[in-house]
Amino acid sequence: MDVTIAIDCMGGDFGPSVTLPAAYRFLQSDPHASVILVGLPEVEAAVGREKPRFGERLRFQAASETVGMDEAVASALRVKKDSSMRVAIGLVKDGQAQAAVSAGNTGALMAISRFVLKTLPGIDRPAIATTLPTMAGYTYVLDLGANVDCEPQHLLQFGIMGAMLFSAVEHKERPSVGLLNIGEEDIKGNEVVKQAGELLKGSGLNFYGNVEGDDIYKGTTDVVVCDGFVGNVLLKTSEGLARMLATFLREEFGRNIFTKLAALFALPALNAFRKRVDPGRYNGASLLGLRGIVVKSHGSADNFAFTKALERAAEEARNRLVERISERMAQHKPQTTAQ
Amino acid sequence: MDVTIAIDCMGGDFGPSVTLPAAYRFLQSDPHASVILVGLPEVEAAVGREKPRFGERLRFQAASETVGMDEAVASALRVKKDSSMRVAIGLVKDGQAQAAVSAGNTGALMAISRFVLKTLPGIDRPAIATTLPTMAGYTYVLDLGANVDCEPQHLLQFGIMGAMLFSAVEHKERPSVGLLNIGEEDIKGNEVVKQAGELLKGSGLNFYGNVEGDDIYKGTTDVVVCDGFVGNVLLKTSEGLARMLATFLREEFGRNIFTKLAALFALPALNAFRKRVDPGRYNGASLLGLRGIVVKSHGSADNFAFTKALERAAEEARNRLVERISERMAQHKPQTTAQ
Repeated sequence: MDVTIAIDCMGGDFGPSVTLPAAYRFLQSDPHASVILVGLPEVEAAVGREKPRFGERLRFQAASETVGMDEAVASALRVKKDSSMRVAIGLVKDGQAQAAVSAGNTGALMAISRFVLKTLPGIDRPAIATTLPTMAGYTYVLDLGANVDCEPQHLLQFGIMGAMLFSAVEHKERPSVGLLNIGEEDIKGNEVVKQAGELLKGSGLNFYGNVEGDDIYKGTTDVVVCDGFVGNVLLKTSEGLARMLATFLREEFGRNIFTKLAALFALPALNAFRKRVDPGRYNGASLLGLRGIVVKSHGSADNFAFTKALERAAEEARNRLVERISERMAQHKPQTTAQ
Repeated sequence: MDVTIAIDCMGGDFGPSVTLPAAYRFLQSDPHASVILVGLPEVEAAVGREKPRFGERLRFQAASETVGMDEAVASALRVKKDSSMRVAIGLVKDGQAQAAVSAGNTGALMAISRFVLKTLPGIDRPAIATTLPTMAGYTYVLDLGANVDCEPQHLLQFGIMGAMLFSAVEHKERPSVGLLNIGEEDIKGNEVVKQAGELLKGSGLNFYGNVEGDDIYKGTTDVVVCDGFVGNVLLKTSEGLARMLATFLREEFGRNIFTKLAALFALPALNAFRKRVDPGRYNGASLLGLRGIVVKSHGSADNFAFTKALERAAEEARNRLVERISERMAQHKPQTTAQ
């Protein structure tokens, strides 16, 4: 199926030096995809040189400004009305593209997406979902920081959106949904989580019940739902732990001439291990609950990782993610009003 | 300094088969320590055989029942009034021991400790703190699950207790305290965390400010404060991730004859790595805010790890942890009332 992705090519730590080659790589591997690169006018010449290879599948759209990685959301949203980020999202709004991808500032991307695209009926708050590798495959976790003080119905909506995302991207009809909780028996969960559990039980989703922190990497359920505070902490804690373990491993192999020699022998296994847990493979967090598809790439994504985010966006568009969420929410409405 | 530790020798996944040898190992390495082993009468004979080695430093106290690892807290607290766990804590209450250690059911241990020992003046809720290894050394994180719905003043109290624990055990006068938060600029933190930040700023502690999930393993601060829900999730998520990475590493080295050979060469480095991140080295979570010292060992602790929990308890007792918290809270009282 033909699909067009709008790319904010100024976003991320490396800007066009990563986003352009990734876009070409993506076009090469996906012959039914087109891209609209949105960037400052000076980027156009570079893009023009690749036009002969891709023809109409590669277009450029100029924007007059960019959103800084640490820029205040208010400024990005209210002042920079012609930023590459905003123009890319506008292309989704206008129907010229089916998805937008940016490696820029997450807060700004969410705020602009929400302002330009609006939320779907029944969705109070959009959420951010990411994919984590597990012992069993992948688990999709949401929310990752867009919503801090959540009500039970928000967690329910995250469950619905997460399930629709999983079914769209992983092609599984009724993915299992777990609610992140803690296990101490007498103090199980806080009030919001308890009530969210009741709502999820009655939701018609394939609700597994409560899961605990260690269930995420076990891969106990396809989707794990939590509030944005907890999701953000668990994601960043995981990043920090993985980095520390990698450093320790490197240090132990670098300790002396014998361990360095051993590292040489161990290189194939160590590289296979590194590749397996490379977060670039799972790059691309989905902004869910909007009237359009927006994917956030990690700011430090390289060429390979940014391509993964583009593939994710194309997959979501081709599998009608927005329509799935919207249809499921429409079905769901009478239930939420009834309780 | 002489110190006596009361040990619930029935607790944990392995009971006396771990707790007894660990107790002997502890007595051997610490000539100024004594232990009172609390267990079912049938354990006494085994303990008796070791009496000649340790004399008065090794005592046995019988209890008529045990608390199950999955037993309901209510039953452990209200029905089993002569459990090994309760008798051990009672010895602290009576002043016969300066600390109690158990590898049993956390919920029951907290409930019984609270009921028997009571909380210190000014402490609304006791907390559980653990030590995590970091790039820089160790970080103490609390709360880990005793308190789910926290108010700002509870987080402040956790900060005070955590700082006193760190200074008692790590011998650093003014340990830095970080408040766990999330970084998305427009949605920074929830209301409770924001208010807790204000309280911590005015507390006189060496308050670093907000930290994020990845700061924990970076070792940005000596102490990290969060509510029990977040703390429990981050700890269990870390356990799950570490287990997954270890499994993947093992799988990659086990893939074929070449990688297996490489693993043989790499064994010294891999073992050094494993030892460095062995959670047994940091075994022993502290129950804080009580009128006595109680340390919880991991249920699956082995001989080595359980010894670490005993050492932790002795260190806390010798460095007057309870008095430190109590004195700091007394100092602090006028400030909290003033705000």
